[in-house]
Amino acid sequence: MSNPIKVGILGYGNLGKGTVKAVKQTSDMEIVAVFTRRDPASLELEDPSIKAVHIDEVESYKDKIDVMILCGGSATDLPGQGPKYTKLFNTIDSYDTHAKIPEYFEAVDEAAKQGGNISIIAVGWDPGLFSINRLVSEAIIPNGETYTFWGKGLSQGHSDAVRRVEGVKAGVQYTIPSDEAMERVRSGENPTLETAEKHRRVCYIVPEEGADTNEIENTIKTMPNYFADYQTEVHFITEEELKKEHSKAPHGGFVIRSGKTGEDNKQLIEFSLKLESNPEFTSSVLVAYARAAHRLSKEGAVGAKTVFDIAPGYLSPRSASDLRRDLL
Amino acid sequence: MSNPIKVGILGYGNLGKGTVKAVKQTSDMEIVAVFTRRDPASLELEDPSIKAVHIDEVESYKDKIDVMILCGGSATDLPGQGPKYTKLFNTIDSYDTHAKIPEYFEAVDEAAKQGGNISIIAVGWDPGLFSINRLVSEAIIPNGETYTFWGKGLSQGHSDAVRRVEGVKAGVQYTIPSDEAMERVRSGENPTLETAEKHRRVCYIVPEEGADTNEIENTIKTMPNYFADYQTEVHFITEEELKKEHSKAPHGGFVIRSGKTGEDNKQLIEFSLKLESNPEFTSSVLVAYARAAHRLSKEGAVGAKTVFDIAPGYLSPRSASDLRRDLL
Repeated sequence: MSNPIKVGILGYGNLGKGTVKAVKQTSDMEIVAVFTRRDPASLELEDPSIKAVHIDEVESYKDKIDVMILCGGSATDLPGQGPKYTKLFNTIDSYDTHAKIPEYFEAVDEAAKQGGNISIIAVGWDPGLFSINRLVSEAIIPNGETYTFWGKGLSQGHSDAVRRVEGVKAGVQYTIPSDEAMERVRSGENPTLETAEKHRRVCYIVPEEGADTNEIENTIKTMPNYFADYQTEVHFITEEELKKEHSKAPHGGFVIRSGKTGEDNKQLIEFSLKLESNPEFTSSVLVAYARAAHRLSKEGAVGAKTVFDIAPGYLSPRSASDLRRDLL
Repeated sequence: MSNPIKVGILGYGNLGKGTVKAVKQTSDMEIVAVFTRRDPASLELEDPSIKAVHIDEVESYKDKIDVMILCGGSATDLPGQGPKYTKLFNTIDSYDTHAKIPEYFEAVDEAAKQGGNISIIAVGWDPGLFSINRLVSEAIIPNGETYTFWGKGLSQGHSDAVRRVEGVKAGVQYTIPSDEAMERVRSGENPTLETAEKHRRVCYIVPEEGADTNEIENTIKTMPNYFADYQTEVHFITEEELKKEHSKAPHGGFVIRSGKTGEDNKQLIEFSLKLESNPEFTSSVLVAYARAAHRLSKEGAVGAKTVFDIAPGYLSPRSASDLRRDLL
């Protein structure tokens, strides 16, 4: 590996851990260090050759890192970290608060231009790969409708909600696309569908000993906002089953564009993901876009970008002529 | 529509006709003329407001056209037309002879640079959207396998072959992905599959009066290269049924990437198309990339490009900030 791309990883939660694993699967990148707000010695890095460094020292790595992958969360970490670290480094993040993307983009753009860096924000699968498919399929088939379905996926917010119900010891909630709604969309009917019609919710609950399972089920199914509008199933299981069958973080979903060309020809474009590990997949997307950021930076690009601004060829370690020969 | 993108269409076969229809579905493009080698008066243009012009006059349109969409075929038209007209215009084509893409790219690249133009070659769905999905999914999940399935689709070459069989009055052949092979791929098994294992072939035949249908069926099923290696079904139908049920040109297919991240987490990325009109869809892709070519040209880009070089945002008529707000 000659001249590998030097990557820094900021934050060592699920996303940071996935990013370490994803970089190791590449042929052209290496990890310089993992940066943390915690005591670096306390990080349980599976690979002892990876250096853990306190975030306060990050500035001294300014010339040692080609791209910094920000692995913090959108609620409290990235709004500050994105602009702050983009002044020092090319950055990638998975900012996913859809409604606030425009203002986050502006803040990062200003910082990136000050630092002469590039930052690709909102990278992952939604926002990310799903967004690309929404854009491209709409551009190709202007006369149509786009539908996004999520799942089968473990929903953190809804799992928290069921665990707060009295009598619930532990539990998880999956969001699952409605087969009926998917079939209606795929048939070209172009129905109007609310989120609640597109998805159903399935809960696996470990009850406290002696708890009233009927009451738990009723409380969940009638919970406003979270479950009341949805077709909801509640299954009671043992703690062992929960551990064995429900300890992964699967997710995925579908983007379907259904439309017409010419007089009356139905055209269907569908993109889907079925992921056993949501954070590891998101990390893998971040790493591919880190490669793109490095290359674009070498070409002189500065400022904030999104997945909409990145040509596919920048994501691959292979040369343009190899890609044309082998994959076009 | 202020300052529409001015499009020329060269060739008026199925692809040219589809391109006229596709441009009409856009909000930001207009057709300047359709260019033809035939007598322009002989073109049966559905819309009489569209001008038909003989190809010999194309040079006088040099400053009146932003992008010329080349709608000729890969076998005999494009190898000459691509380089020739890219000296005069920004061009788009659907060159699809996979094995010769590298040399075609070089020829067009040289011509485009001479003319100070941009040319996006090999645009459509395969090569095209399928190629993008092969590239992106491999870049994101390096540890995995990519599978391309074609169909359900009307295959012109195989339909011609069955029509040459003695006793066959008319007929069509569909290539259909094998459900079993698709399931094996989706399960994450990563099997090694020959093309013949991935697809089956279904023929609908109108026999001549008094023809021996058993012999027809046997001749088709044992035809080397075309059918002998495949699971093949032959159905005999009437001429009326053929006209009613088999007069469209449907196609489509699947690109599936199956791989693993981290220790052992299966990840599946799938892209698929289900098209009632293959040429109209290809035309719609060409038109979206024509928009990209015009914009890139205005930014000063020259030379040959492929879909790998085009950022998604260039395909949409909407502004970058609208796309970030609405589709990201």
